Amino acid sequence: MDEKLHAMRHSAAHVLAAAVSELYPGAKFGVGPVVEDGFYYDILTPAPITEEDFPKIEAKMREIIKRGDAFRREEMPIDDAIVFFEKRDQPFKVELLKALKEKGTTAIRPEEAQDVGIPPLPEGGLPAGSTAAGGGVGAETASVYYTGPFVDLCRGPHVANAGEIGAFTLAKLAGAYWRGNEKNPQLQRVYGYCFATQAALDEYLAMLEEAKKRDHRKLGKELDLFTFSELVGGGLPLWTPRGTIVRRELDRFVQDLRAAFGYEGVTIPHITKRSLYETSGHWAKFADELFHIAAREGREYALKPMNCPHHTQIYARKPHSYRELPKRYSETTMVYRDEQSGELGGLTRVLSITQDDSHIFCRHRQVEQEFANIWSIIDRFYRAFGFTLRVRLSFHDPARAEKYLGTPEIWAEAERALEKIARARQADFFVAQGEAAMYGPKLDFMAMDALGREHQVATIQLDLNLPERFDLSCINEKGESERIVMIHCAIMGSIERFAAVLIEHLAGAFPLWLAPEQIRLATVSDDFIPFANDLKEKLAAAGLRVALDDSPEKVGKKIRDAAMMKVPWTVVIGQKEAEGMDFKVNVFGQEEDLVIPQPDFIARAVEAAKRPE
Amino acid sequence: MDEKLHAMRHSAAHVLAAAVSELYPGAKFGVGPVVEDGFYYDILTPAPITEEDFPKIEAKMREIIKRGDAFRREEMPIDDAIVFFEKRDQPFKVELLKALKEKGTTAIRPEEAQDVGIPPLPEGGLPAGSTAAGGGVGAETASVYYTGPFVDLCRGPHVANAGEIGAFTLAKLAGAYWRGNEKNPQLQRVYGYCFATQAALDEYLAMLEEAKKRDHRKLGKELDLFTFSELVGGGLPLWTPRGTIVRRELDRFVQDLRAAFGYEGVTIPHITKRSLYETSGHWAKFADELFHIAAREGREYALKPMNCPHHTQIYARKPHSYRELPKRYSETTMVYRDEQSGELGGLTRVLSITQDDSHIFCRHRQVEQEFANIWSIIDRFYRAFGFTLRVRLSFHDPARAEKYLGTPEIWAEAERALEKIARARQADFFVAQGEAAMYGPKLDFMAMDALGREHQVATIQLDLNLPERFDLSCINEKGESERIVMIHCAIMGSIERFAAVLIEHLAGAFPLWLAPEQIRLATVSDDFIPFANDLKEKLAAAGLRVALDDSPEKVGKKIRDAAMMKVPWTVVIGQKEAEGMDFKVNVFGQEEDLVIPQPDFIARAVEAAKRPE
Repeated sequence: MDEKLHAMRHSAAHVLAAAVSELYPGAKFGVGPVVEDGFYYDILTPAPITEEDFPKIEAKMREIIKRGDAFRREEMPIDDAIVFFEKRDQPFKVELLKALKEKGTTAIRPEEAQDVGIPPLPEGGLPAGSTAAGGGVGAETASVYYTGPFVDLCRGPHVANAGEIGAFTLAKLAGAYWRGNEKNPQLQRVYGYCFATQAALDEYLAMLEEAKKRDHRKLGKELDLFTFSELVGGGLPLWTPRGTIVRRELDRFVQDLRAAFGYEGVTIPHITKRSLYETSGHWAKFADELFHIAAREGREYALKPMNCPHHTQIYARKPHSYRELPKRYSETTMVYRDEQSGELGGLTRVLSITQDDSHIFCRHRQVEQEFANIWSIIDRFYRAFGFTLRVRLSFHDPARAEKYLGTPEIWAEAERALEKIARARQADFFVAQGEAAMYGPKLDFMAMDALGREHQVATIQLDLNLPERFDLSCINEKGESERIVMIHCAIMGSIERFAAVLIEHLAGAFPLWLAPEQIRLATVSDDFIPFANDLKEKLAAAGLRVALDDSPEKVGKKIRDAAMMKVPWTVVIGQKEAEGMDFKVNVFGQEEDLVIPQPDFIARAVEAAKRPE
Repeated sequence: MDEKLHAMRHSAAHVLAAAVSELYPGAKFGVGPVVEDGFYYDILTPAPITEEDFPKIEAKMREIIKRGDAFRREEMPIDDAIVFFEKRDQPFKVELLKALKEKGTTAIRPEEAQDVGIPPLPEGGLPAGSTAAGGGVGAETASVYYTGPFVDLCRGPHVANAGEIGAFTLAKLAGAYWRGNEKNPQLQRVYGYCFATQAALDEYLAMLEEAKKRDHRKLGKELDLFTFSELVGGGLPLWTPRGTIVRRELDRFVQDLRAAFGYEGVTIPHITKRSLYETSGHWAKFADELFHIAAREGREYALKPMNCPHHTQIYARKPHSYRELPKRYSETTMVYRDEQSGELGGLTRVLSITQDDSHIFCRHRQVEQEFANIWSIIDRFYRAFGFTLRVRLSFHDPARAEKYLGTPEIWAEAERALEKIARARQADFFVAQGEAAMYGPKLDFMAMDALGREHQVATIQLDLNLPERFDLSCINEKGESERIVMIHCAIMGSIERFAAVLIEHLAGAFPLWLAPEQIRLATVSDDFIPFANDLKEKLAAAGLRVALDDSPEKVGKKIRDAAMMKVPWTVVIGQKEAEGMDFKVNVFGQEEDLVIPQPDFIARAVEAAKRPE
């Protein structure tokens, strides 16, 4: 996002707050940062805002913009700023300023950074839950911005005056706990879209309209892929036969790609005694998200939020010679994380997360080759669906070496290797220093979908930590025990999240190889049921997923029904077909029928249903 | 077991108690029933018995037997019996008598039945946890048996005198909570083997010796199939790559057999809100075995101990026409039951249980065909491994019709259908009246293994209950809502338990199609590594699981190593082979090599690795 657009959006957020403060006396303001399509502001009003109030608020905003109120900056010592906002009865601003004063920038969450005067977010944003870092105005002074009578804590920059704000519209309302903590009061988050021109905004709104049609929650129900039950609970999808086929085919694709590189399957339970996570460090770190289980005889278990600690115990079952390495364990299994029950009914926020997980146990010198192998798996997987990939090389910050596990040499070597692979592959990549995990550098892959939206997908993570904690080693050429490293990688990440992205990317029109129902036969009348049944059996015997619509409906209705379910191939079976004439295949999304002579039909269908390699 | 042998074994239990009461003054006795290879007695002694004490106890027992003490019966009113055992300071006997007096026979557990005077167990024993039922001496009188100075509460019958007891030996010690409840004191369970003749006992001991060699815990480690970690906890097996292949192949076998009958996969999470189990009735019924999870925002979840309630929610996602039925959902997934941490390190008692589960939703008139289909799946599956099957038709007790859900007509019709199938299949079956579950009749399959041991394996269960509780129906021909029924069936039951049975049945020597490593190539020297690698790749490309031993070891050692892992085919690769001469296949368990011309080798290997159909 260019600086001008960023300033416009942030200025629009101020104008929103200015409008609300006029319309709702006594409104308290949280934070109001820029997001990828506009801005939002977290607000607490005496009576809640509803979407019906949007025209009124927008009208007031347009009035301010028309008036062209200037943005005027003022700096002051942080203590003065605290008093300044106490006087104006803005307790959230006061709280932020006090946190900044007492604990410094590490106490500030990314979405709060702009308000309290910390430098802008890095390209691509910060990963959720991380804390903003860096210098900037810092903990000694603060700046505020006036727009007309309204004043807000803010780092800036802003446009010169409100008249320079481009096209905007208020978008939606959501609830947001103050500072992301469910124990704090819930504010209303008012979202707005904002673009430089009306044309850009219109284009974006059209994209949203298309995205709505493709919403995986809507398509998931229409295409009968998954369902939810109130008795089972939100965030716990139940996958139907059709959805289970899609999951299985996606997973087979990943497993087949992995097979070429010597991965082996393993199987673990979904629970463990707490001792495993005490050793791994997850007991403390994941405490809030861990589902705890109290059992008989005082035993204490947890549902696994990840698979790595269990997998280390399989590696550790016996000593390994260097000749056996790398060991590559792969397992598709559900992990469980206790999330706040936010948005329900969809696959993007679930409690039961199916990871197509893998862990490689290898020597330092093997890391480069393993990363390269995984990268080709990711490449082939995502390109098969028409996603374009961008890669972030998340490296450590050499200025803060003390933050990381492992020696500077190990980091330098690993990062050099990753960058070398990226260059060799001529990948679309960028380096993000300071984005590494404490225990190793990683590659983060971003996939762009058919609507131009970017989704964070696979991650390859080097891990110097768990091998230490679990004392994992191999016997090297000299007969000595040598510490190994681990590489974590899930290709899809989670099947649920990837399925959501894929359904929206494809608008639910799965390619033939992936479609739960590949071919539907539709009889013109009951006379042709025996012929259709015979054909169905032959297709099924050839490994195709075929269904027969032999209902008494009209054939036109049957074709529309098949199109509703986005069945890739529909074949009408009537007199001509029974007499051996060519089959006319109604291909979903194509105007022209595909005409195939009967003797070739099964072979052509099998060929067309092959997964791209 | 014939009556004579049964009396002998039970008399031996009395003699054991008599010996212990002489050797350990103050010993308190629990119950001492007959088991399939002898007897046991639950005993509480002031100082614990150890296996080192066995010779001393056996000597005392032989002394009593040699003396030929007569068994003498005496009957008395139950209240007198209570006083009788209070005087003799036998509180467990008193407790049993009081339970019988106050609550009748339903308060008595099967293993307690003989002591308190309830008729003998039915053929095949009672399922664990069920309560004994029936008439007999009942709650008004009790009988005791004297042997020399010893006297015990007992229904009998016994042999005339201790001299008639055949050959016996004490077997082992275990812990057992009084009345199976972990809140009660733990007694010592002293097991003894007892047979009519010394020859029969010797044969049995030889079988045990062989069983020890085949112990799946021992072979599981040696063949590197599964492992346990102290950090993860007991009862939670971690499956290695080899074990995971065996699991996968077994599961594929089941799924392939099911595919022919129109089963569809579904996918559910491992947890649910408690409301699902409140509706199903499991919340109350399974309370002790349920793993409870407390989550954020006061939400309450449980780990699933079975899959049926979740699967009903998939069926219930939309209305179904009768034309769509039966719907056959299948899913291999782990369930969790909070068992007492008894025997660990094995697969027969685990907390994480992988069920190859299925649920059929169908109309009453479809039950017969579905049972017949499942029966053929079970038959084909078990016979493929050389198990012989016996089937118990567990029917309701028409004299206690009030105990069961559903009308007498529905039961009569369902049971008639099951018996008809059994006769049509000419199966080895027997009817056990009163063995049905409250909610439907079932078929229980018993498999006999290579050592002549019988294992309860698959069960097919008709269920009239859950469809009521979850209001499951279809729209019938008349457009009316019609209540459906469910059929539950897992072919293996649990993969863990079946794997344990199978490993012991096969002594770990998996057939070629199932072996985790099917073929091992062993090079005579490094010169032949390129040739061997090339062959390995060709075999792998043909879908075979092949490994290459190219270590610097001697070839004899390599062959022994392969035999240790029970690899079905081992092929030495040396000069002759590199020159194109025939391959000599060292087949595990065979004296003679299998000689195969090189051009035929891959095709022959593929053929030999096919699963039996």
